[in-house]
Amino acid sequence: MAKKPLNVGIVGYGFMGRTHSNAFSQVNHFFDVPYRPVLKAVCARDAGKAKTFAEQWGYESVETDWRKLVERKDIDVIDIASPNDTHHDIAIAAAKAGKMVMCEKPLGRSAAESLKMVEAVEKSKVPNMVWYNYRRVPAVTLAKQLIDEGKLGRIFHYRAKFLQDWTISKDLPQGGQGLWRLDVDVAGSGVTGDLLAHCIDTAMWLNGGITKVSGMTETFIKERHHNITGKKEVVGIDDASLFLARFANGSLASFEATRYARGHKALYTFEINGENASIAWDLHDLHRLQYFDHRDEGRTRGWRSLHITDGDHPYMDKWWVPGLQIGYEHTFIHQVADFLDAVGGGKVAAPTFRDALATDRVTDAVLKSARTGQWENAND
Amino acid sequence: MAKKPLNVGIVGYGFMGRTHSNAFSQVNHFFDVPYRPVLKAVCARDAGKAKTFAEQWGYESVETDWRKLVERKDIDVIDIASPNDTHHDIAIAAAKAGKMVMCEKPLGRSAAESLKMVEAVEKSKVPNMVWYNYRRVPAVTLAKQLIDEGKLGRIFHYRAKFLQDWTISKDLPQGGQGLWRLDVDVAGSGVTGDLLAHCIDTAMWLNGGITKVSGMTETFIKERHHNITGKKEVVGIDDASLFLARFANGSLASFEATRYARGHKALYTFEINGENASIAWDLHDLHRLQYFDHRDEGRTRGWRSLHITDGDHPYMDKWWVPGLQIGYEHTFIHQVADFLDAVGGGKVAAPTFRDALATDRVTDAVLKSARTGQWENAND
Amino acid sequence: MAKKPLNVGIVGYGFMGRTHSNAFSQVNHFFDVPYRPVLKAVCARDAGKAKTFAEQWGYESVETDWRKLVERKDIDVIDIASPNDTHHDIAIAAAKAGKMVMCEKPLGRSAAESLKMVEAVEKSKVPNMVWYNYRRVPAVTLAKQLIDEGKLGRIFHYRAKFLQDWTISKDLPQGGQGLWRLDVDVAGSGVTGDLLAHCIDTAMWLNGGITKVSGMTETFIKERHHNITGKKEVVGIDDASLFLARFANGSLASFEATRYARGHKALYTFEINGENASIAWDLHDLHRLQYFDHRDEGRTRGWRSLHITDGDHPYMDKWWVPGLQIGYEHTFIHQVADFLDAVGGGKVAAPTFRDALATDRVTDAVLKSARTGQWENAND
Amino acid sequence: MAKKPLNVGIVGYGFMGRTHSNAFSQVNHFFDVPYRPVLKAVCARDAGKAKTFAEQWGYESVETDWRKLVERKDIDVIDIASPNDTHHDIAIAAAKAGKMVMCEKPLGRSAAESLKMVEAVEKSKVPNMVWYNYRRVPAVTLAKQLIDEGKLGRIFHYRAKFLQDWTISKDLPQGGQGLWRLDVDVAGSGVTGDLLAHCIDTAMWLNGGITKVSGMTETFIKERHHNITGKKEVVGIDDASLFLARFANGSLASFEATRYARGHKALYTFEINGENASIAWDLHDLHRLQYFDHRDEGRTRGWRSLHITDGDHPYMDKWWVPGLQIGYEHTFIHQVADFLDAVGGGKVAAPTFRDALATDRVTDAVLKSARTGQWENAND
Repeated sequence: MAKKPLNVGIVGYGFMGRTHSNAFSQVNHFFDVPYRPVLKAVCARDAGKAKTFAEQWGYESVETDWRKLVERKDIDVIDIASPNDTHHDIAIAAAKAGKMVMCEKPLGRSAAESLKMVEAVEKSKVPNMVWYNYRRVPAVTLAKQLIDEGKLGRIFHYRAKFLQDWTISKDLPQGGQGLWRLDVDVAGSGVTGDLLAHCIDTAMWLNGGITKVSGMTETFIKERHHNITGKKEVVGIDDASLFLARFANGSLASFEATRYARGHKALYTFEINGENASIAWDLHDLHRLQYFDHRDEGRTRGWRSLHITDGDHPYMDKWWVPGLQIGYEHTFIHQVADFLDAVGGGKVAAPTFRDALATDRVTDAVLKSARTGQWENAND
Repeated sequence: MAKKPLNVGIVGYGFMGRTHSNAFSQVNHFFDVPYRPVLKAVCARDAGKAKTFAEQWGYESVETDWRKLVERKDIDVIDIASPNDTHHDIAIAAAKAGKMVMCEKPLGRSAAESLKMVEAVEKSKVPNMVWYNYRRVPAVTLAKQLIDEGKLGRIFHYRAKFLQDWTISKDLPQGGQGLWRLDVDVAGSGVTGDLLAHCIDTAMWLNGGITKVSGMTETFIKERHHNITGKKEVVGIDDASLFLARFANGSLASFEATRYARGHKALYTFEINGENASIAWDLHDLHRLQYFDHRDEGRTRGWRSLHITDGDHPYMDKWWVPGLQIGYEHTFIHQVADFLDAVGGGKVAAPTFRDALATDRVTDAVLKSARTGQWENAND
Repeated sequence: MAKKPLNVGIVGYGFMGRTHSNAFSQVNHFFDVPYRPVLKAVCARDAGKAKTFAEQWGYESVETDWRKLVERKDIDVIDIASPNDTHHDIAIAAAKAGKMVMCEKPLGRSAAESLKMVEAVEKSKVPNMVWYNYRRVPAVTLAKQLIDEGKLGRIFHYRAKFLQDWTISKDLPQGGQGLWRLDVDVAGSGVTGDLLAHCIDTAMWLNGGITKVSGMTETFIKERHHNITGKKEVVGIDDASLFLARFANGSLASFEATRYARGHKALYTFEINGENASIAWDLHDLHRLQYFDHRDEGRTRGWRSLHITDGDHPYMDKWWVPGLQIGYEHTFIHQVADFLDAVGGGKVAAPTFRDALATDRVTDAVLKSARTGQWENAND
Repeated sequence: MAKKPLNVGIVGYGFMGRTHSNAFSQVNHFFDVPYRPVLKAVCARDAGKAKTFAEQWGYESVETDWRKLVERKDIDVIDIASPNDTHHDIAIAAAKAGKMVMCEKPLGRSAAESLKMVEAVEKSKVPNMVWYNYRRVPAVTLAKQLIDEGKLGRIFHYRAKFLQDWTISKDLPQGGQGLWRLDVDVAGSGVTGDLLAHCIDTAMWLNGGITKVSGMTETFIKERHHNITGKKEVVGIDDASLFLARFANGSLASFEATRYARGHKALYTFEINGENASIAWDLHDLHRLQYFDHRDEGRTRGWRSLHITDGDHPYMDKWWVPGLQIGYEHTFIHQVADFLDAVGGGKVAAPTFRDALATDRVTDAVLKSARTGQWENAND
């Protein structure tokens, strides 16, 4: 059946520009959704690089000023795939222009920024979504299903970590292309907004709200050469961030993110322990879910390693056959598919800007607690 | 830079039609190759289904007779993604028409069929390739690199298995849509040509030629309803096939394929033991390679679980960042990329039809040995 | 060569009475140490059970009052394997009587109790040791070696957990035989003293002193039937205990212990991330050590799963052949072997009472922090 | 209660002398059996070493001629822990003298030798057992229980391997202390009798009789220095041995043993695939059993990693608490416990000499098939 075109204008051509563009390109090959994304324009300050990117992905045009992109009549959705310090202004302008807005995470550099963005999209009543893509790993979506069905029973514990090791070298500069995540002015924070935000988004989706936190952060390398200023400057981001937390449902939690865990490239992992069952997952084997069910017969009770590649696993009926795994970029395809379904059906696709604001409130509280040495409320 | 178009005509819209189409669609998004595949036509007997497929993947036209497709002037490459009994005729006609030919594996239903196909493409001197996609799993390609660099030393042992469990039910019919692999007339053989062929292709690529084999096969369910004749008929395929083998380099090997290994969906696994190092891999975690190096210091010597997601791993500089895995379909994209590079550079991309013929000679020998109860030569 | 007898008097015949007795029985079969433990007497209030135990293990005599045991001239070492509330009095009396003292962990029910015990053994100058047996898991001892050799470089992170699930049922009573660990008067605390104490002992051995902590505890089941009083009573122990910590070397840490982690029986696990290498271990596969060395060549760099069964692994030259694993009880045998070697050589075998006091100071600080909501110093 | 003494005379003080002596020493500490083994005498040609061994393990006396040991009135059971070439004569003499006989595996160096041994013990009607210890790994015993309960349904496949890497060096001599396994005159064969015999014993216990085999062997190092003759001599043993097999129940099997699998120390592993469930196990993590049950709900169906440390697992109620693993030597303790129970109850403890003869018939058939290149019957 003929699908309605949905004209996409993307800001940014970096790592996230690629994952989003791939998702828009692939969604109709695998998912029966009511819209057909049309890659109308890519916007970036460097016209040459933007043009190369446009040719590679099939964008019809190039813009070098996001304000012009936002004003274009032929654009239905603004997709923000540029660094964190650009999210606030672009999103608010896009919302005011009546565009749908998709925004990379974290939403803002602080909950204060995010709140204004939420208010803008809600005032304009435009569909909006934040790219917390890990919700759409099929194994993670299955975890959500099992929890919502009550398979775990009362929840006692939640644990999440996001471990990387790519900034251990002292020679790595801060700021500039590919390294803006080390520049606090651009990123807002270090691993707290970058990695912990993922952990928190998943956690609150699976286990409900977080009420209070006790945090600790560290910057192991205190000064780094700045790629833009050309000088050695004090590093403003956190290299590692840990916190203890209480959920509204009474469960206890421990969170950690770091870029100094040698041997781990992108090891996002969580575990949740319930009265009757437990679940564990990690990003390095994202196609598996570990599941323990205490109701199994005693002698043959054990952790089950589920290979999430079957037709009855979330999203997997759209891909290959049992045993054949999908990868990282598919999570973005799933998110676009759900977004298009939601828009087509007049529904909301989570996580919305408001959902993402809740995450930013937790990250703000963690950073505050690390400064004050006190437990801080997580939903102020 | 502008890429030359390469017009593709595909035969078949089933599972392999999807993996190939995806590969043609995606290759230019990630690989800098000299050609741009253009999806010119899909060919299938059922015009309606072919049209639906064409719309989904962006094929410009539809054919219902592969002979017409082969005759079309605007087609550069014929890609055969239809059942095994069609390979021989289409490939030979395509070669005669001067088309490049890509063919799903196994090449023919027997070495005799395959030999004629090899002669046809070699006579016409057309680029040709067989879709033994598992060579292009980055972990498997890395295994090849490590072996070729001599890291393993003298090879003592090779072991491969391909275990599935999807035909255990007696109620599964043979023949017809999605089930032609159970119909010996269409498939040529059972797991021997379907699964063992993959194991053998990889094995000979990594470890050189196989000289002799001793095989054993079994058909556990002797009769099944036939979807086309509508009657219960004797099952002609092998459900399980095992063989011992000698390689030309003196190493000993054991191979097994079955569709009756409960709990395994598509567990293709191999291990190779050398004097200095060993390697193991399995398809259920295709993004990992297990590596043991005896030269490591004694106390800290152990099997290393390599997470094949780094920029210095084969193909992986084209994808995401370390820690983020790719999946099954990427192997086909890699194969197209290598094919286009080879064609552009006037080189040969393996495995060629001739390479695939060698595999068919081994599978023929296995089936013969299972009948004779003797060791059989594997390269006659 | 003839070994000197060392006469052992043990208090307690429960789980730890068995592990200690086994260690004394087995040590001379495998280790060439200067002493031969002689099982002189077992002491317990229930004479019948003590007699059964004595017969099973070959103790020559039975006592029902530990004071009498301590006074016996024919006893060289008093081994305290009875519940926590008995440690203080017995240890001090034994020290005053000039006996060597071995004591189950935790040393006292509080750092205050432990301090008096330390003062007693140091005043009497008697050899003393606390049964933190996990230091002598060969894999853990190897971790210590690798760290001390500088293989990890600067340490950034330490993580430890001890997860169990045996007290989730509401029907489990507190107090009495086998359940005294749920009775706060006997145990002193819940998982903090029972499980976290193990984690802390290992952590400080491997990574040096802990300076400050922020803790959180929970008692999920608030009231339980008391086996001794016969009434339902408020539960005084902590069911779960988590804390963040700073080590003196600047590294950040996260600790957790719980008896409410469904699916985990005794999953003690730690990981330590250094600049150049990382190490991980868990008690459910205690014969393995996970090791990652960043200095490995890039393509073949990965976590190594070390199977700690070789002759060059700590203690393992005394056991079987490579590939054949040992189990839990062997850690106690190793500890006795080291103790006998130390006594024979006039040296100190760690962990001493003073070492164990440092652990109790951390557990006290965790419990205090959980009450105050503040970071607390861990070495007061 | 008082236990009856059972006087043990052991032949051999090597590796197996230690495992057996430990089993006799430990059994009464953990198992409530009707007998108390008394270590009466150890016999070995080297009186000095025998004396040292006797002191270490508490044997009361030493013999240097096994004929004298067999004649002693104060010996109830002769335990043969010496090299393979001694089994036949000692066992037959012991049986004639009316002693119970326990014998290391393989029973004889050939089925012909074994048959005479079987006839001797059966004629004398003495309790007899062969130390195929791996049956008593709790995980393996559990596998037996699950199969016997019908949990797997019809069996399709059996796979077993025993992989080692300790003889790869060309410098390793054959023959002499610790190396008699490389001397064909002493050992009878190489890995076939040493390692495959274990695989076959377990396989026939779990899956019934083997009817025919097709084998292949290799000796990678053709000549080695002989420790006794002092000359370089042709190596008579097989370094690697593989075979395909049919079981009487129709299932297909693949077996392999080698000492040239770099990276594997003692990796004995088996897997069995049934219609409804599958089981896998390996010796490097002997405390685990992998179990897949197809009857689990589809989304949460996966391989379960059972941690065989619970009270309802075979033998484990005698050891520690859930989560705490036992090791290699415990299998021998279990075997002694079962033997003593059987003797006390007038029953037979498997595997008997006759059971072991069946294994030797299979190994003979494998070696014969490797020579003839034919399928050979396995129970002649």
